[in-house]
Amino acid sequence: MPAFEDHPIVYQSFAVIDQEIGEHDLSPEGYAVVRRVIHATADFEFKKLLRFSDDAIAATSMALQAGCPIVTDVGMVAQGLRRIVRETFQNPVIAAIEHAPKSPLPDQTRTEAGLLRCAQQYPHALFVIGNAPTALLALCRQVSEGTVHPSLVVGAPVGFINVIESKQALSDLEIPRIWVAGRKGGSGVAAAIVNALVILAWERGMGDGYG
Amino acid sequence: MPAFEDHPIVYQSFAVIDQEIGEHDLSPEGYAVVRRVIHATADFEFKKLLRFSDDAIAATSMALQAGCPIVTDVGMVAQGLRRIVRETFQNPVIAAIEHAPKSPLPDQTRTEAGLLRCAQQYPHALFVIGNAPTALLALCRQVSEGTVHPSLVVGAPVGFINVIESKQALSDLEIPRIWVAGRKGGSGVAAAIVNALVILAWERGMGDGYG
Repeated sequence: MPAFEDHPIVYQSFAVIDQEIGEHDLSPEGYAVVRRVIHATADFEFKKLLRFSDDAIAATSMALQAGCPIVTDVGMVAQGLRRIVRETFQNPVIAAIEHAPKSPLPDQTRTEAGLLRCAQQYPHALFVIGNAPTALLALCRQVSEGTVHPSLVVGAPVGFINVIESKQALSDLEIPRIWVAGRKGGSGVAAAIVNALVILAWERGMGDGYG
Repeated sequence: MPAFEDHPIVYQSFAVIDQEIGEHDLSPEGYAVVRRVIHATADFEFKKLLRFSDDAIAATSMALQAGCPIVTDVGMVAQGLRRIVRETFQNPVIAAIEHAPKSPLPDQTRTEAGLLRCAQQYPHALFVIGNAPTALLALCRQVSEGTVHPSLVVGAPVGFINVIESKQALSDLEIPRIWVAGRKGGSGVAAAIVNALVILAWERGMGDGYG
């Protein structure tokens, strides 16, 4: 198991972020996630916006190492994390919208319908929502009802309608979860969170003697 | 040619943005682009960051209507604009990184090498950079040397290394161009800019009697 090597420009960017980040009380692993999100957005506000349940990073590391599938809401999120997943644990990556039934229910978005279908097939997956608050809300309902048991949910939909409500629903659950408070988020943010988690898990694997 | 219909949630989001945007001196078409970027990021700072050459929107409309190919730097940008392009003008969409030669030159990134190859093949394309400043810098050099003649360049790489320099190089050129001042940008921003331009061109086509 070789060390994971980012492009040299990534490390140069991280050095700039380290210089400019200022004070924070993030754990080293939490900071690794925040730093990759800032690298993807050049937006230091994410320092204050990212929230982690206590078990999120450790639980995710184990799930990723065990080959857990990664279900994203939309194709852009999947596209943004496929390369680093392929270079490490090679977990299956599934974009839910591509599995939407031909005729979703009248009050369902296609992403929501696709996500519910994927959640049925992969109830223990790592779920990553970077776009569709409807999908995050539907997933949270399934978790509350006990039919889906995610290894982790990343809640990073972006926007103005139902977004804050969907993140609130996630924050209220008792499962491993990472979310972006407020309206911000997006495919690039969601992918950056997962890429950071994958690299942390890879480095943990090395430390645990898998190297 | 039917009217382009976004999801109802998009129009609800636009209404929130209209309420909160405050004063600006953007043209109606410039505002349509800015609004879609804010919709994709929930970041109102883009109101001040987006820059347009005078001819950018009109030139792009004609190029899109004429079937001009769209060359993006990375797959995430291509993924983010494919749906709306498919539902309108169906321009070819090419992600340069997927056309990188097997052995790029030692001082070249893969995206840069792929972009130069695509620029040779499609010198009049609409080029969209949402990630790699190296690709934008290389493209600007080719334009200066007169070997590439883009219909439009969108310069929205994000980050901390070479990003501001690459946008400066684009802003100095005398071609149709849209860029994001400063460090911000990213795949979602680049895709949102193009999606707004495609819809504007589609609506212009209707107004011009193509309907």
